[in-house]
Amino acid sequence: MLKRGATQVLRAAKSRASSSSLSTTVPSRLTAACAAGARWSAGSRRTAASAAALKTHEDAAELLFQALPPILPDDLPIVSADERRVAIGWDTRTWSRFHNIWLRDHCRCPKCFHPVTKQRLVNTFEIPADISPMKVEAKFEGLEVHWPETERHISLYPWNWLQQTSYDPKIAPKTERKEKILWGSQILQSPPTVTYYEVMSDDYGVYKWLSNIDCFGFSFVSDVPVTMEATEKLAQRIGFIRETQYGKFWEFTSDLSKGDTAYTTMALGPHTDNTYFTDPCGLQLFHLLSHDGDGGATLLVDGFYVASILKELDPNAYELLSNIPIPAHAAGEAGALYRPSPPGGYPVLTHDRVSDALAQVRWNNDDRSAMSHLDPYVVEDWYNAIRAWQRLLTSPDSEYWVQLKPGTAVVIDNHRVLHGRSAFDGKRRMCGAYIGVDEYTSRLAVLTEKYRLGRGTKADDGSAPARSVWSPAL
Amino acid sequence: MLKRGATQVLRAAKSRASSSSLSTTVPSRLTAACAAGARWSAGSRRTAASAAALKTHEDAAELLFQALPPILPDDLPIVSADERRVAIGWDTRTWSRFHNIWLRDHCRCPKCFHPVTKQRLVNTFEIPADISPMKVEAKFEGLEVHWPETERHISLYPWNWLQQTSYDPKIAPKTERKEKILWGSQILQSPPTVTYYEVMSDDYGVYKWLSNIDCFGFSFVSDVPVTMEATEKLAQRIGFIRETQYGKFWEFTSDLSKGDTAYTTMALGPHTDNTYFTDPCGLQLFHLLSHDGDGGATLLVDGFYVASILKELDPNAYELLSNIPIPAHAAGEAGALYRPSPPGGYPVLTHDRVSDALAQVRWNNDDRSAMSHLDPYVVEDWYNAIRAWQRLLTSPDSEYWVQLKPGTAVVIDNHRVLHGRSAFDGKRRMCGAYIGVDEYTSRLAVLTEKYRLGRGTKADDGSAPARSVWSPAL
Repeated sequence: MLKRGATQVLRAAKSRASSSSLSTTVPSRLTAACAAGARWSAGSRRTAASAAALKTHEDAAELLFQALPPILPDDLPIVSADERRVAIGWDTRTWSRFHNIWLRDHCRCPKCFHPVTKQRLVNTFEIPADISPMKVEAKFEGLEVHWPETERHISLYPWNWLQQTSYDPKIAPKTERKEKILWGSQILQSPPTVTYYEVMSDDYGVYKWLSNIDCFGFSFVSDVPVTMEATEKLAQRIGFIRETQYGKFWEFTSDLSKGDTAYTTMALGPHTDNTYFTDPCGLQLFHLLSHDGDGGATLLVDGFYVASILKELDPNAYELLSNIPIPAHAAGEAGALYRPSPPGGYPVLTHDRVSDALAQVRWNNDDRSAMSHLDPYVVEDWYNAIRAWQRLLTSPDSEYWVQLKPGTAVVIDNHRVLHGRSAFDGKRRMCGAYIGVDEYTSRLAVLTEKYRLGRGTKADDGSAPARSVWSPAL
Repeated sequence: MLKRGATQVLRAAKSRASSSSLSTTVPSRLTAACAAGARWSAGSRRTAASAAALKTHEDAAELLFQALPPILPDDLPIVSADERRVAIGWDTRTWSRFHNIWLRDHCRCPKCFHPVTKQRLVNTFEIPADISPMKVEAKFEGLEVHWPETERHISLYPWNWLQQTSYDPKIAPKTERKEKILWGSQILQSPPTVTYYEVMSDDYGVYKWLSNIDCFGFSFVSDVPVTMEATEKLAQRIGFIRETQYGKFWEFTSDLSKGDTAYTTMALGPHTDNTYFTDPCGLQLFHLLSHDGDGGATLLVDGFYVASILKELDPNAYELLSNIPIPAHAAGEAGALYRPSPPGGYPVLTHDRVSDALAQVRWNNDDRSAMSHLDPYVVEDWYNAIRAWQRLLTSPDSEYWVQLKPGTAVVIDNHRVLHGRSAFDGKRRMCGAYIGVDEYTSRLAVLTEKYRLGRGTKADDGSAPARSVWSPAL
């Protein structure tokens, strides 16, 4: 068991480094394609760069999923059960197997799964380890299973849910694929933007805004009234503002009032905020209210884009950034001493434990604490790795510089896009807010249900059908 | 490089399972010792149970650290440098080696490290990869290094900081050891308690309160005025209250108003809150204001205690709980669909990446989403593992049942102690709040500086000496 767990990690690490190398000319091609509005995702980039590359398991699963025949009343899947598992034949070549205990645990009838709260009611721990169906039957609505309980119990699992959740083999793609466009400096030709009016007048405007952020990692909002109040209302269209030691909705001047170099006139290199938190803020909103002076341009860098290049050019560096945790602190005020929990910290690049997709970038070299946990044999490799990463982050191909103007706010996905600024002089008033990552993803998920998955209609008439217990999010 | 990273994980997994097995009589011995007020930590328990057990590297490092001679003016450490590293001889047998680039990067003079904000100012990425000192010298204050820069630069590293951060070899223990007392049902004989007066009148009372929570995972507060207002003020003695979709400071009745079974009269088994968040709340405060009816006893279970037993009795189950992520959701309201980021979720048991110490328990079987990512070969083992875990959580030896009364609040470390309740009838008013884990650990760190590390005095006279750039937290 021990060995198996460890092997899974090794396999994941190997697959991350297995893509073929790209030439250094790729970045400019990539950004040109992106600026031209092409849907140029990391996935298609890999395929384009290396047509002969082996399909990943993920790709194979997706193809299999798409190739499954529709369920027809007169051609239902074949089902059978034995003392351990239920087998479902989708077509002559594709079978899914589900363990009996897994099926009983995943029953979503109103007695086993609360139809309103969407919480499990069945007592998982009272299900006999050797439970076995009395009968299984293919119905048009799904797989029907009769369980041998004192009180008669019948479960029904919709076919498409069984395809989505099939684990033996995996049929549906692991990730809920949302198209992400990775970008470099050329994004300046056509940066994602919505209007204040769109966002404030209709939930569809918020959906468009958050979809921009989901796809590009940031979005401008134009025509914002140049006041703190209007900007705060804008932020609250996503959700409540996350409180931190800096307050909630903040105004930002160069008075070093918060014991952090952000509150100076100094230039700041590309970084993500809150590396010293267990959970760095999800979104960050900035709005320049006024600037009576020079400098202070805003820098945005797509961390996922830079990571994808690093992975191609220097897979060993990518692995070190993915595995070596970095402790961090915010300790500029006597009354606060922030460090993440657990205090060992987190690596620069975090991947989803299930899909192994890159999920989060954490990077602020200024807030890094003592690296007293390094394996002596990787010290020089690690410094080379962060140097390679920083060089790519600060290459002209990666940097998107923009001079913010009063009336245009920007929202950044702080788990993906790094920000910075050039030095400035004069009086500069900036306001803004943090939104928690969970508030952001919850709001986007609800709006996606409403506008993309067809749970509701664009008009908010209050009569949207209820969320199904079989929603793929549950 | 790939292989090395993976091996580290494997090694960590192995060491977690390497302790010798304890007999099942241990739990009652443990709890008896705890109730008698003995300082009975997980570490000493292991040693007591198996005197012949091999010392871990951690133990070895601690012994080495304690055995180092004091630094005396006429007997300074021997220092030398070559083109890659600086070596420091602490005594005839113990040497530390520091890479040149590591030392230059960790310079904490005011030009390299901001003395107020405690942020790095030196540009790590401009340090030549092959930097090498012109001269190294042992001073009474520490190691002095002369660097070959156009502008003359001299770094001074205090000896005790070098011992603390030595990585080749590791000299100081990896974890900042705070004594944790693991407990079972016998804790009812003498549960940790502070008074409302102590906490409200003096920061030392808050330090005592948070130290209780740090040690036991919970603490009562007695003699609290039975009002929402007083309870809210009590919570704010730790820090600001964390806002969630449930609000900030909440009142809690059985009206299902929040689309969650917590808002019913149902019994709830032992669970941690917010498994559907990226960052579950750190502390949870409860205060029963009134109950006109029967039932509704509160259950507390020390998750670290139960995990320590599981690790001894069933190391394979412990590994599965430490490695297999569990997706979760809060989806009972149409306007919210919370899931952690990344959506693959987190394992039940999270360990610090550096010390490998158990750091967090996440457990709410009711909020678990579909387990469609399980390796088919571990499905039955995984169900056996969660069954074993749940059986230990619900054993009479683990359960601490207490009938809360108006006037006594309880604060729980939601990363360690699980809570639950028995079913009830009648009208029951409960109020409470979440505090973020970072606000809790920051407050405790600041108070520890003040009262234990001698940075200040008990009286808050505003003249506490400033935090050193060499603080072990940075």
